Amino acid sequence: MIIRSLKKVPRERLHGEEMRGVSRQVPVGKAEKSPNFSFRVFTLEPGGHSPFHSHASEHVNYIISGKGALKDEKGELHPLSAGDFCLVDPYEKHQYRNLSETEALVFICAVMKQYE
Amino acid sequence: MIIRSLKKVPRERLHGEEMRGVSRQVPVGKAEKSPNFSFRVFTLEPGGHSPFHSHASEHVNYIISGKGALKDEKGELHPLSAGDFCLVDPYEKHQYRNLSETEALVFICAVMKQYE
Repeated sequence: MIIRSLKKVPRERLHGEEMRGVSRQVPVGKAEKSPNFSFRVFTLEPGGHSPFHSHASEHVNYIISGKGALKDEKGELHPLSAGDFCLVDPYEKHQYRNLSETEALVFICAVMKQYE
Repeated sequence: MIIRSLKKVPRERLHGEEMRGVSRQVPVGKAEKSPNFSFRVFTLEPGGHSPFHSHASEHVNYIISGKGALKDEKGELHPLSAGDFCLVDPYEKHQYRNLSETEALVFICAVMKQYE
């Protein structure tokens, strides 16, 4: 049994050409010997975004705080706010965007642990 | 791609001899054709609790709101509050308790979908 406050989980800044203002925490994953899941938490700074990409792993999201959008493969933006859950299917092109000018967008992004 | 506000997900009251004041929502699971995960959300009323039990499935939790405790197999209570993540291992005996007299304890409880 593991109980961890998100505030105490180290946060790593990610770098990449197609992302901006993104950092990552992993409260539950391989390091915790999780049998199946990795629960990552992404923080997108105001104006930040993830790459517009697709991959073999689905995403299950829960929006902890902030306001943003999830871009679908047609380029359409779907609003996101605290309390929303999302399912992004395997190989479905997507991008998370923070649309706020002042507040971070913080969300859980769960994947099978081999994709952590 | 599915985006659902927790507020719009139907909530079902659960009944059982060893539980009290528990209701359940399933924002992402079998009905949404989730490839692997079921994200259930449990609401425990003030004084409410789940059964003190164990099962083959691990639990990964995120505490959305409220204050409570997670009881371990020795009977010890570990405090829970908003922003905490938990991992309960397969076959580890456990119980979730709401320790507030006024506020609901609301948390994500993720399992592999076959255990939904």
